[in-house]
Amino acid sequence: MQADHPVIGIVMGSNSDWEVMQNAARMLKDFGVAFEARVVSAHRMPDEMFEYAETAAQRGIKAIIAGAGGAAHLPGMLAAKCIVPVLGVPVPSKYLRGVDSLHSIVQMPKGVPVATFAIGEAGAANAALFALQMLAVEDKEIARKLADFRFAQNAKARAMTLPVDEL
Amino acid sequence: MQADHPVIGIVMGSNSDWEVMQNAARMLKDFGVAFEARVVSAHRMPDEMFEYAETAAQRGIKAIIAGAGGAAHLPGMLAAKCIVPVLGVPVPSKYLRGVDSLHSIVQMPKGVPVATFAIGEAGAANAALFALQMLAVEDKEIARKLADFRFAQNAKARAMTLPVDEL
Amino acid sequence: MQADHPVIGIVMGSNSDWEVMQNAARMLKDFGVAFEARVVSAHRMPDEMFEYAETAAQRGIKAIIAGAGGAAHLPGMLAAKCIVPVLGVPVPSKYLRGVDSLHSIVQMPKGVPVATFAIGEAGAANAALFALQMLAVEDKEIARKLADFRFAQNAKARAMTLPVDEL
Amino acid sequence: MQADHPVIGIVMGSNSDWEVMQNAARMLKDFGVAFEARVVSAHRMPDEMFEYAETAAQRGIKAIIAGAGGAAHLPGMLAAKCIVPVLGVPVPSKYLRGVDSLHSIVQMPKGVPVATFAIGEAGAANAALFALQMLAVEDKEIARKLADFRFAQNAKARAMTLPVDEL
Amino acid sequence: MQADHPVIGIVMGSNSDWEVMQNAARMLKDFGVAFEARVVSAHRMPDEMFEYAETAAQRGIKAIIAGAGGAAHLPGMLAAKCIVPVLGVPVPSKYLRGVDSLHSIVQMPKGVPVATFAIGEAGAANAALFALQMLAVEDKEIARKLADFRFAQNAKARAMTLPVDEL
Amino acid sequence: MQADHPVIGIVMGSNSDWEVMQNAARMLKDFGVAFEARVVSAHRMPDEMFEYAETAAQRGIKAIIAGAGGAAHLPGMLAAKCIVPVLGVPVPSKYLRGVDSLHSIVQMPKGVPVATFAIGEAGAANAALFALQMLAVEDKEIARKLADFRFAQNAKARAMTLPVDEL
Amino acid sequence: MQADHPVIGIVMGSNSDWEVMQNAARMLKDFGVAFEARVVSAHRMPDEMFEYAETAAQRGIKAIIAGAGGAAHLPGMLAAKCIVPVLGVPVPSKYLRGVDSLHSIVQMPKGVPVATFAIGEAGAANAALFALQMLAVEDKEIARKLADFRFAQNAKARAMTLPVDEL
Amino acid sequence: MQADHPVIGIVMGSNSDWEVMQNAARMLKDFGVAFEARVVSAHRMPDEMFEYAETAAQRGIKAIIAGAGGAAHLPGMLAAKCIVPVLGVPVPSKYLRGVDSLHSIVQMPKGVPVATFAIGEAGAANAALFALQMLAVEDKEIARKLADFRFAQNAKARAMTLPVDEL
Repeated sequence: MQADHPVIGIVMGSNSDWEVMQNAARMLKDFGVAFEARVVSAHRMPDEMFEYAETAAQRGIKAIIAGAGGAAHLPGMLAAKCIVPVLGVPVPSKYLRGVDSLHSIVQMPKGVPVATFAIGEAGAANAALFALQMLAVEDKEIARKLADFRFAQNAKARAMTLPVDEL
Repeated sequence: MQADHPVIGIVMGSNSDWEVMQNAARMLKDFGVAFEARVVSAHRMPDEMFEYAETAAQRGIKAIIAGAGGAAHLPGMLAAKCIVPVLGVPVPSKYLRGVDSLHSIVQMPKGVPVATFAIGEAGAANAALFALQMLAVEDKEIARKLADFRFAQNAKARAMTLPVDEL
Repeated sequence: MQADHPVIGIVMGSNSDWEVMQNAARMLKDFGVAFEARVVSAHRMPDEMFEYAETAAQRGIKAIIAGAGGAAHLPGMLAAKCIVPVLGVPVPSKYLRGVDSLHSIVQMPKGVPVATFAIGEAGAANAALFALQMLAVEDKEIARKLADFRFAQNAKARAMTLPVDEL
Repeated sequence: MQADHPVIGIVMGSNSDWEVMQNAARMLKDFGVAFEARVVSAHRMPDEMFEYAETAAQRGIKAIIAGAGGAAHLPGMLAAKCIVPVLGVPVPSKYLRGVDSLHSIVQMPKGVPVATFAIGEAGAANAALFALQMLAVEDKEIARKLADFRFAQNAKARAMTLPVDEL
Repeated sequence: MQADHPVIGIVMGSNSDWEVMQNAARMLKDFGVAFEARVVSAHRMPDEMFEYAETAAQRGIKAIIAGAGGAAHLPGMLAAKCIVPVLGVPVPSKYLRGVDSLHSIVQMPKGVPVATFAIGEAGAANAALFALQMLAVEDKEIARKLADFRFAQNAKARAMTLPVDEL
Repeated sequence: MQADHPVIGIVMGSNSDWEVMQNAARMLKDFGVAFEARVVSAHRMPDEMFEYAETAAQRGIKAIIAGAGGAAHLPGMLAAKCIVPVLGVPVPSKYLRGVDSLHSIVQMPKGVPVATFAIGEAGAANAALFALQMLAVEDKEIARKLADFRFAQNAKARAMTLPVDEL
Repeated sequence: MQADHPVIGIVMGSNSDWEVMQNAARMLKDFGVAFEARVVSAHRMPDEMFEYAETAAQRGIKAIIAGAGGAAHLPGMLAAKCIVPVLGVPVPSKYLRGVDSLHSIVQMPKGVPVATFAIGEAGAANAALFALQMLAVEDKEIARKLADFRFAQNAKARAMTLPVDEL
Repeated sequence: MQADHPVIGIVMGSNSDWEVMQNAARMLKDFGVAFEARVVSAHRMPDEMFEYAETAAQRGIKAIIAGAGGAAHLPGMLAAKCIVPVLGVPVPSKYLRGVDSLHSIVQMPKGVPVATFAIGEAGAANAALFALQMLAVEDKEIARKLADFRFAQNAKARAMTLPVDEL
């Protein structure tokens, strides 16, 4: 369910981006941080996009996670319209596999930053984790949960075994 | 001098793009077609950019030539805001040499087209020529001038000689 | 059915390009604009290609949408032979996924422009939309239909929901 | 002068990276936010790098801006060792012009995020601006300064003129 | 079974890398050289990674084969922490197919070398063969086995036939 | 069946390349030109490769078609060892899709040429056609067959229809 | 001086290509093989280009060396119009450094081959050498000269020394 | 001066590669390890290249450092002819800046390994350092010198200061 008072906004250009972007949503849900997730298309909903950016801060949004593919203008245009930190996720494209998305998001000109993450699922999850790390600077509870997350992640990796005997 | 009643609008993200984009302006000037050339930055002037797109048609603009580099959002966002044909020119970037600009302009999603031209000077000149070819569909005078231009271009190429004797 | 008096010509190098290029045809059909769609191969039908370009204007063609893959010469050679606006669609290639097609189409030298669109299906559909936007400059009816198309596109995007509750 | 109680840490692999990374430092200085700038090389100072990450939070560092080129491991390894937000700046490399740096920084695996910015000077400046935007979420004074910065940036872009008369 | 006194260490960032990296393990097993294969993640197990590098030499490890994908920092960071030769294997990534992995591994700065091999299975097998060639410089028995391996490889290639008659 | 007195030699690094290279063989068979097709691996059969190049001319070979993938050294090394024209076919590689093969074949240094064709099946077929065009300079019969081939190719392309009515 | 009865035709899209293409001319001159060198632009002289291809064989041309940059259509279109072997030289482009030229020339579709050589000067020289190797199949004198060329090239390379003492 | 009993062989395709490859030579000289440096061209000296590989082991060579650019076949062909470890250095090429060199060296097929290092100067120096690390496995003196080298490298990096006050 969409949160009533979201702290993080997750937006994407189309519901077809959900397969990738749900990795951000799930991470925030696991950490218990209120978020909203909406389709806001830079090219098909330009006015709504501007309105989203203009009202984000007053609605309590502390970071916007924006996913887009191909000529991906959503993260950069949101960033141009507000000073809420924008985290960009390059969604893989059909033929160029997200190289175009990455270039469109990361190569922002001086003056309007977009924090960019990896192409695809990993990037979406990491954008959420980064938003949590931002919140953790002031929020001890989230900081503690992130430390636990890292600890569990380390433990899981350490426990991994390789089927060497099956060679 | 900027035209009073421009038919073609040339816009770019910064006056540093002029070195490339003047090739479009010069071509239109040579053909005697009224144009305006302005800095309209997608990221630093988002509201003015939207206003530019919203008012272009009523101001008599029949095509917009938009140049931008890096995460080049100007052409695509103008295209999202109006149905005036937008011709995009990828301005070369410092490190990726315009590959990022090209990807950001040409890879538009279905529904919002941007006609894209070559990276740099050739692309700017060709965007102007293309705008003239668009006008020529209805304007016999421009069509005649374009035919002359092609004829002269052919003649010039045919007259080129190579210093084979200097080998 | 091919139109008797087509306004837009859709050409491609092989019938295997139809899967991509039909997206242009369908768009024009939806808008009720007369078009023709033909195989015209630059490499296997060079003379027919030249003839196509030479006769396009007199046959009433106001824009040519040309799709080709790999060393894609069709759009550029048509553009070299006429001043009818040529819209190029990079058809994806088997191994380089259309990067070669894109380079072959967009990087035209100064003097002979080809308006280039995205690789694949989106590019084909957008080339058609762009042709419609060109026509709309003089044709109020098409302009109205394009505005409706944009409105519907916006409404559809706005209505998109995300299965956040299923996380 | 290095700040006594820095809020932002700027680190880079070598003093040859300063030409790029000073753009981050200058931005923070302009905003009056305390920072430190140090050489911390992932490959030549691995233990010091780990120590830097481990002690950053307790020393009051709220964000680390890390620049590196080529096989750029500094941002990602700092991120692996702490939950202080790490902002990565791909420093251009001699032959691959920063494409390698970008890949090494942005393509982090799920679980350890690095916020990545553009290759080179623009990326360094934007990393600093992003850090300021992060601080501004809680700090009204910085938020006000950022709004002023955006306003001035807009005004400067609007005031740009193009030498159209010189064509 | 993991060797008690391994001469070669095979490490990788995750057990999902095993599909590629088992090609190294199998080659070493075929040659009868003792090895160990473990998950050591640069980003999720940074301290364990450093410890691995610090203790490798004293545990008798004469070469470390390290596989990693995406922003692949494992080989380079191991190399930064010890002078045991590190052989890096770029594991293919989901969207960039290992180009990012290759850049992250091969483009090491002057002073800290990583010997890099081909992307994927071939690279893993060749890293093992290279480790064997290193050992063979001092070990006549391994040198003999390698000569046999080359001889058999040559014979197998020479015996290959092509179904020309089926054309 | 392999020809007794082949005029064209087709070589490749492995029988796994046959899927691609059979397109060269089939073309030559269709034209009735005697050829041989053999596995000659640059890396696994270096001495046999040199011998192949050294004896090609005296055995009546007028062109060598060489296919190889990845770090594709076969065409260039054959070219280094004889003055029989070498036609190189970049075989697609698993991860880089033949970009590596193309670079390894086409970028020969001044002094030792390799004629390079497209990546994959089309390149293999075209290498054979090119060999036929070379022979046709002196052989009227082959020239006639090539003209017929071109004529048929043109006719086939002209006869292609598009299912426009099914839209 | 242009030869009266040229055996090899060297063509290029503009006299600005001469800096690269003269390397082909000089090689042919050194071998004493009659050639012509002309500007034939695919895009600015399409009809003359077709005429060139149509008359090449009857004028005694046994190979055409065609250089072009960017969206390089000259080699492929000549190849589409005749069965004289066409050797393509990718001329470096300003921003993409010839990657676009290479793609436009080498990626020809099945049925119309272009033999492609390296980007730039080396490719031009090698196209000429390849043309000589083609002629040498039937011409013992040229074969002898090529053997001498290779011998001298080998001797020159063997005589190269390195200033090791100056380290 | 070339060593009488070299332990490491440095070879390259041309004396123009010396500017890059001298970085390997200087490193070995600094460590006092005997080496030879010679021009051995794969394409212009194929027989001498094979002879070099065949005799390397018996001449006491324990590792071969091979630099080459463009279609760089030298490292891979040496590796095909001997089991002495071959360290490949991609020399930057004029137009593709060494991407072609890197692909030609690193993408070796399974069975014949080449250890590859970074493009250019850093790669040459690192190949030498890697050779030293190989020797250090059995040679305590070199191991000690390498430890000293690392220590000095760390100290130098730690001592680097940044002109923050000059901002």
